[in-house]
Amino acid sequence: MTVLILTSDEDVTADMVVLRLHETGAPVVRLDPADLTSGVALSGEYIQGVYRGHVSVGGRLVSVNGLRSIWVRRPGVAAARAAQPTTWLTEESSQALYGMLRGTDARWMNHPDAARRARHKPWQLRLAQRSGLPVPATLITTFPQAAREFAERFPDLVVKPVSGAHPQEPPRAVPTSRVAPDTDFAAVAFGPTLLQRRVAKRADIRLTAVGDRLLAARKAVAPDADPNDVDVRFAPSTSTWAPVDVPPRVGAAVLTYLKEAELAYGAFDFAEDGDGIWWFLECNQSGQFGFVEMDTEQPIAHSIAEWLAHGAEPGRTYVNGARRATS
Amino acid sequence: MTVLILTSDEDVTADMVVLRLHETGAPVVRLDPADLTSGVALSGEYIQGVYRGHVSVGGRLVSVNGLRSIWVRRPGVAAARAAQPTTWLTEESSQALYGMLRGTDARWMNHPDAARRARHKPWQLRLAQRSGLPVPATLITTFPQAAREFAERFPDLVVKPVSGAHPQEPPRAVPTSRVAPDTDFAAVAFGPTLLQRRVAKRADIRLTAVGDRLLAARKAVAPDADPNDVDVRFAPSTSTWAPVDVPPRVGAAVLTYLKEAELAYGAFDFAEDGDGIWWFLECNQSGQFGFVEMDTEQPIAHSIAEWLAHGAEPGRTYVNGARRATS
Repeated sequence: MTVLILTSDEDVTADMVVLRLHETGAPVVRLDPADLTSGVALSGEYIQGVYRGHVSVGGRLVSVNGLRSIWVRRPGVAAARAAQPTTWLTEESSQALYGMLRGTDARWMNHPDAARRARHKPWQLRLAQRSGLPVPATLITTFPQAAREFAERFPDLVVKPVSGAHPQEPPRAVPTSRVAPDTDFAAVAFGPTLLQRRVAKRADIRLTAVGDRLLAARKAVAPDADPNDVDVRFAPSTSTWAPVDVPPRVGAAVLTYLKEAELAYGAFDFAEDGDGIWWFLECNQSGQFGFVEMDTEQPIAHSIAEWLAHGAEPGRTYVNGARRATS
Repeated sequence: MTVLILTSDEDVTADMVVLRLHETGAPVVRLDPADLTSGVALSGEYIQGVYRGHVSVGGRLVSVNGLRSIWVRRPGVAAARAAQPTTWLTEESSQALYGMLRGTDARWMNHPDAARRARHKPWQLRLAQRSGLPVPATLITTFPQAAREFAERFPDLVVKPVSGAHPQEPPRAVPTSRVAPDTDFAAVAFGPTLLQRRVAKRADIRLTAVGDRLLAARKAVAPDADPNDVDVRFAPSTSTWAPVDVPPRVGAAVLTYLKEAELAYGAFDFAEDGDGIWWFLECNQSGQFGFVEMDTEQPIAHSIAEWLAHGAEPGRTYVNGARRATS
């Protein structure tokens, strides 16, 4: 039973996991969909009710029926490196590859459908609420009047994008920033705006979930930090990430979130306030983990390798990346 | 409890269903995401564990928490008709609208995730096999040698795209065509190719599934028809569609398919051979139905309206468009 990793050659984080996978003895195949149809070939046949599929990477032939798990890391655009790339060839190659892989019984980290759904910020906030995680008061609106009323109720606000990175080349992360007190919000009418009560935080929390394993890290905010530096990704910092215990109620809520979201991997960002409460900010289903592992020495790569290499837990089956109790 | 229809103004098929919905008395709102942020506005707030969302269409305000069902017909690209459309505004508007709608308890026809998955032809073929539908022998490959061996085994072949319509402007349907006996298949190496045993058909079958209701229509192939006209969409024809009973085994298999695919609507195409066997060709989750209803007078629009207007059936709940038995 082989582990398939869909990612680009430059993905050094995947290298960390491949090293760990070799320790487990599980056969590993690394494939970049961008290499269809040059270094990568595929074939699937459907005859008399039976399906047999194969992919070939660098001359090595692998049965897709024998795949144990599929790790979707940073795959390139299908057929992007073909001799004559076209939108049509990309569409055909993507449908052929992912369509074939979707027909297998392999477990996914994460399944493409779950991954796509998980990117929707409004859906994340609602699921976090339902799972029992504290969510800072948030408004997503195109009504200027709604924005004004929200700002009266919660005067200390931040603004952030509804979606993820700005789609320029290369894509650019848009930082979360504070809203000036005199903002009039008229421009809200021209595009959805996400306003959120600013959490006066004493630490940032990154909780990395791998299957049922939760690994949390904490980075304290310096006492003299500028309160306008709300986005940990962009704030200057001299402190490092340190391992921290997950409060039991947060752990239970995170597991509920993952189950409902049908995610096998998630990187949760929280802001810890003065009372020690972890406020949910977002869950990135493909969040990086290398920087946390470097600081904390938490076995994240090892946990991912274990999840990919080992079979389903007793009493549970994995269907299309989703966990369903078999009871 | 309101029915929300996501589609463009020009969608006359939706008009048929809206007429029927008015007969049921259910409130209906029709919204084109392209009208964000001009005629359409939205607002959602997440405060202290509670979520409240609204959309406004032409001045009419609707609570998204009070949505009974959402029909995704032919929605335009989000914010496409904004004063200054950009990729970024489309991404933000799409995430805001669909993210908010995904957070509701409304039933979907069809849920965007299920719809996206259902477009994968290789996945369709595998699911049809698993559901117990006869599937003509099919090969999807980039190996010329695999294509040659398949052609030796099944000399009478058709070729069709792995994905759907060609992505030109406007998108163009690519017809299924016969493969000439002297084809050498070398070009298969440059892009995935779908080859399928040609079914010597005596009729085309269109089975329209709406929830648990299956409405099948049959169009006989003229005795003097050119066997090279394999694609009913492009073949000249003087005959019309006529209602036909669904064989019980096919009906059961189709319901299994829909359940696994988490689809509330599907347009199945079959080829009926000389023995009366219905061979699965594809299931289009957004297939048109107006032409069948015109020929057959089958109550398809009525069935869709009923499904959208009525609540969940007893003993079943609808979660994100998926049907889960509550037992």
